Amino acid sequence: MPWPQEMKTNASDFNITEDFSVFIHGDVDEYSRISEASVRFVRYMTHKSGIFVTEGFPNAKAISASTASLNIYFDTEAKVVMGIDESYSLNVSDAGIEIRAHTDVGAMHGLSTLLQLIKVKDGAYAFTGVQIKDEPRFVWRGLMMDVGRHFMPVGVVKRNIDAMALVKLNVFHWHLSDDQGFRVETKTLPELYKKASDGQYYTQEQVKDIVKYADDRGIRVVPEFDVPGHGTAFLTAYPELGSKKGMTYSLERNAGIFDPTLDPTNEKTYEMLDTLFKEVAPLFTDVYFHIGGDENEGKHWHENPEIQQFMKDNKLKDNHELQTYFNIRLEKILAKYGKSLMGWEEIMTPNMPKSALIHSWRGVNEGMEPGESLVKAVKNGYQTILSNGYYIDLLLSVEDHYLVDPMPAVALSAEEAGRILGGEATMWAELVTPLTVDSRIWPRTAAIAERFWSAKEVRDVDHMFERLNTMSQFLELVGIQHRKSQEYLLRNIANYQDTHGLRQLTTISEPFKIYSRNAGGTEYKTYSPFTLFADACTSDAKSVRDFRKLVDAYVDQSDQSVKEALARYLNTWAGIADQLKTIAPNAPLVSRVQPYAERVGEIASIGLKALENDEISQEELQQLEALIVKKEDTAVNLDVELAVANDIMRLTQYLAKK
Amino acid sequence: MPWPQEMKTNASDFNITEDFSVFIHGDVDEYSRISEASVRFVRYMTHKSGIFVTEGFPNAKAISASTASLNIYFDTEAKVVMGIDESYSLNVSDAGIEIRAHTDVGAMHGLSTLLQLIKVKDGAYAFTGVQIKDEPRFVWRGLMMDVGRHFMPVGVVKRNIDAMALVKLNVFHWHLSDDQGFRVETKTLPELYKKASDGQYYTQEQVKDIVKYADDRGIRVVPEFDVPGHGTAFLTAYPELGSKKGMTYSLERNAGIFDPTLDPTNEKTYEMLDTLFKEVAPLFTDVYFHIGGDENEGKHWHENPEIQQFMKDNKLKDNHELQTYFNIRLEKILAKYGKSLMGWEEIMTPNMPKSALIHSWRGVNEGMEPGESLVKAVKNGYQTILSNGYYIDLLLSVEDHYLVDPMPAVALSAEEAGRILGGEATMWAELVTPLTVDSRIWPRTAAIAERFWSAKEVRDVDHMFERLNTMSQFLELVGIQHRKSQEYLLRNIANYQDTHGLRQLTTISEPFKIYSRNAGGTEYKTYSPFTLFADACTSDAKSVRDFRKLVDAYVDQSDQSVKEALARYLNTWAGIADQLKTIAPNAPLVSRVQPYAERVGEIASIGLKALENDEISQEELQQLEALIVKKEDTAVNLDVELAVANDIMRLTQYLAKK
Repeated sequence: MPWPQEMKTNASDFNITEDFSVFIHGDVDEYSRISEASVRFVRYMTHKSGIFVTEGFPNAKAISASTASLNIYFDTEAKVVMGIDESYSLNVSDAGIEIRAHTDVGAMHGLSTLLQLIKVKDGAYAFTGVQIKDEPRFVWRGLMMDVGRHFMPVGVVKRNIDAMALVKLNVFHWHLSDDQGFRVETKTLPELYKKASDGQYYTQEQVKDIVKYADDRGIRVVPEFDVPGHGTAFLTAYPELGSKKGMTYSLERNAGIFDPTLDPTNEKTYEMLDTLFKEVAPLFTDVYFHIGGDENEGKHWHENPEIQQFMKDNKLKDNHELQTYFNIRLEKILAKYGKSLMGWEEIMTPNMPKSALIHSWRGVNEGMEPGESLVKAVKNGYQTILSNGYYIDLLLSVEDHYLVDPMPAVALSAEEAGRILGGEATMWAELVTPLTVDSRIWPRTAAIAERFWSAKEVRDVDHMFERLNTMSQFLELVGIQHRKSQEYLLRNIANYQDTHGLRQLTTISEPFKIYSRNAGGTEYKTYSPFTLFADACTSDAKSVRDFRKLVDAYVDQSDQSVKEALARYLNTWAGIADQLKTIAPNAPLVSRVQPYAERVGEIASIGLKALENDEISQEELQQLEALIVKKEDTAVNLDVELAVANDIMRLTQYLAKK
Repeated sequence: MPWPQEMKTNASDFNITEDFSVFIHGDVDEYSRISEASVRFVRYMTHKSGIFVTEGFPNAKAISASTASLNIYFDTEAKVVMGIDESYSLNVSDAGIEIRAHTDVGAMHGLSTLLQLIKVKDGAYAFTGVQIKDEPRFVWRGLMMDVGRHFMPVGVVKRNIDAMALVKLNVFHWHLSDDQGFRVETKTLPELYKKASDGQYYTQEQVKDIVKYADDRGIRVVPEFDVPGHGTAFLTAYPELGSKKGMTYSLERNAGIFDPTLDPTNEKTYEMLDTLFKEVAPLFTDVYFHIGGDENEGKHWHENPEIQQFMKDNKLKDNHELQTYFNIRLEKILAKYGKSLMGWEEIMTPNMPKSALIHSWRGVNEGMEPGESLVKAVKNGYQTILSNGYYIDLLLSVEDHYLVDPMPAVALSAEEAGRILGGEATMWAELVTPLTVDSRIWPRTAAIAERFWSAKEVRDVDHMFERLNTMSQFLELVGIQHRKSQEYLLRNIANYQDTHGLRQLTTISEPFKIYSRNAGGTEYKTYSPFTLFADACTSDAKSVRDFRKLVDAYVDQSDQSVKEALARYLNTWAGIADQLKTIAPNAPLVSRVQPYAERVGEIASIGLKALENDEISQEELQQLEALIVKKEDTAVNLDVELAVANDIMRLTQYLAKK
């Protein structure tokens, strides 16, 4: 994953043995990007296979091109900027392995593909024999991490960058400021990180380290400093730049859209941003610089008569025009420091220069058509990328994201279509911490990465799910902690007693979707515990699809052979509450789950009885319906839903009609 | 853990509720060490308990001394140096919680104790009501991490420092160079990290960050640059400083004691070390600076006629005197930069200044009495610390380490005894990686920490083991990955099939002890896979002590009531091989374990049969003996031993005699 553009199977595989060795052709030394990538590749391979390779480093003295297992050829070391050649070819057979690419970045993609070809064959590890020719469909394949709401330490960022490289994502969009925190050390404006980060920020050297870390993996880094809205952190440090005079600002602990907004009529605002951008721009090597610009409702602008006067004086007829005025000034500042402005779609106002990159994000939740602004942007002559449809923090099924294509269904000229550069998955962090962020991003983002890389026609959902399961293992190999953390959370919830009932419950329970967890924004504060049962659950819970398919077979095709499997599931779920009961007395967090587990047990029991009796009474059906809609659980912050509820309902309704 | 010097139980406990709040008395702001420690404490508490506290930060506006749950009093912010006052008192009752200390470091120890008082009471989380007065027995309570053999990234070091703080260790000894790598960026001598680290080193800012991180937790950092032996990394960068002329040096990939040694007769050696120390000394705030000095066998000195001539000219009669000459020159260089020299016990030669601190490490394995050099050091007027007995990389039972006291059994004057400052656990890293290092250090080092902190009389092994089990949970709470990594390793070995058979096998299997894994030093290279079954096993395997106690009861007290429990264990172990057989075809690493599992199964089956029949034939007894001594497993790098073998033997011998 992502699925290659062209792939043929070879007759023979390549067996991994201790003789495995790598030879890189061309002018490289041990610190060349491709050399380090090859070392990582060999470490992953040995780590997974347990093979003791004799030569641990590429181009070691004893290795020659003719004897090496893997030969890597490339023409040039790429400067990692938008639009470089990322293509590669890969040939695996028992005669050896060859990666060819124009750039070292392309060759690194070849290594990511090769790693995923590891399989067991005749009781030993081998690489599957294939011929692959591959290149990306879109040039911009991004993952955004919000480190403003919850700070993510360097190690968390790095392991996610490793995972990005595995699935060939190439833009790390780093959302570095928000109402809840400003996350970068600034020497010229030290109040920003000293007063507005709770001590949780990246030093400049850490920023540079991460930028280099990403670059070493062929990944661009686009920083975002969100202005003028989402500005509480800025204003905690510099209240005099706020649009509401005399207001005392302090870091936001809740989630939501807040009023604090930089004052666009105050020259000192531009001085501060000029100082900031001048200092931070050189930390980032990429030309794009994201200034946010979203969700400014302008309440404080309306309330401030001086701002209103300024608008009159400058013939700015509404908040949009005022924000455009602000954005255009920012664009000029950024240009001085060699940066191109990029912002969320709200920046697309009539006078915005066409050089700005429009980040399309709003959709149905915001009362708009999905991707509406994307089409508008390209028709208006802007380059754009799509995030609507890739909001992974909504915790929808990965299927929903996978089927969204960055290229809209409407007719576009070739020129217009060419302005759609790709897309970005967005990991907003109101409800995620370093402990849970991996399980919110992965493995699902691998499917989104496939959407950005692979051919438009690659959209078989079953095939995707099957491969996603394997990707989950490779993601763990490169350091992602989604599985480790889930098990730890269950141990913590069970207070270190038997977790098997809780684990079973996670296979059918999914965290509330579309921001219905923490709906008011105040139930969870930034410092609330995110170590609850909902945090241990994930979207696409493990047994849900399998159960759905069994119900499909039983209901739609009257396939009696699945009856036993259905019964086995229902029987397991019916028994969870009893197991939890044994551990609840010594585990207060299990007590919170118990009412839900009991409800699940009742639902499963009714379903099981109906299945076994091949009938269900109207009374029981109503009882089931009542149980399914009941949500006593929310009172205890349980915030999960029974993801098999509809399918149990479907099964019993079918039985009722029989 | 460590057990306090004085503790009384209060009649009432303190229930944790959402009103929980902290008030710190004295002149503190949010960046004060104690404020940050309090924030961490509250996060750990909420994280474990799932309680949504209303106020997430100490001394928030709504919190006053009279209403706060926890009041912290202290007199001064300590400069973290050797010998500061670390005492504290802690009072917990339903009326509130109070920590009092002379220094903020003492107060932080109070928080570490308080965290461990969390328990479940009446279905909710509470702090146990106690009155504690506590202070350390020794001033030097250290953990050494070797990052030379296998590099440990910043995140690994930091989480181990957090764990140190939890168990009140106060010296992080950082072994930064060895034959396998030099791990610090040096601007004046860039070849050191560029040529001799494989790109795995700490930047100077990372070093400073870690020093500050430790200081924030009341922990001193003592760096070690090991010279003149263990010098391959130095000589890879600067071959001209080697004792063997014309030799080509390259980073060592094997484990062992190697010949490359700095040339003590070459003035340029001192120039290089002076340059290095001048640059790195200011990165560390502590006065002590460890120069290694161990295991120099002087082979290259013997072989080099110029060095022999230099010794004659300078009346240095042997290698010891030459090394003393070297050490004394280093002591003078370090003194220029405000540092006191510390070294492994080999530096203790007749002319060594008494200001040097002697690190006692050799013992039975090196043909000496345990702690021999410790006594010699204090009698010679040196201050000293003990590591012999605390070599956790030997993978002995924690019981062995726990019962070693830094204070020797021989008669010492008060003055002499006062020169024994404490001890250090040493985590040498030939066979550990970032993935396994936590499970090698923890939870066992908590018991060693107790030895260094608590009263000499606290040495009840059963009580220690019981508490160690709880500590394992708190260690996971502060970020230690021992359990997470073990489960991941089992998943990887099982190639993501069912791991329960493997997990059962880890409960009775322990990795080879006392360096018998990798005995020749070449079987495992630095880049070999440390993701094998032995890496998933730990010393003090989970079921071993329990089984031993059952055998004790059955054999020594003829207690028939334990028969069923014994049979249950044996029956489980007898069945492991069958489960592994089902997953082995698709898991090459399981195939390697299979012969061992089968042998374990045969052993357990014979034991089970004997137990059930209440007798065993001589033939079966011999068969059992043969199975137990058999080690076919080593051929496949299995490197584990059946830790219940002797007890099964004991049981069957008893049955044979009956």
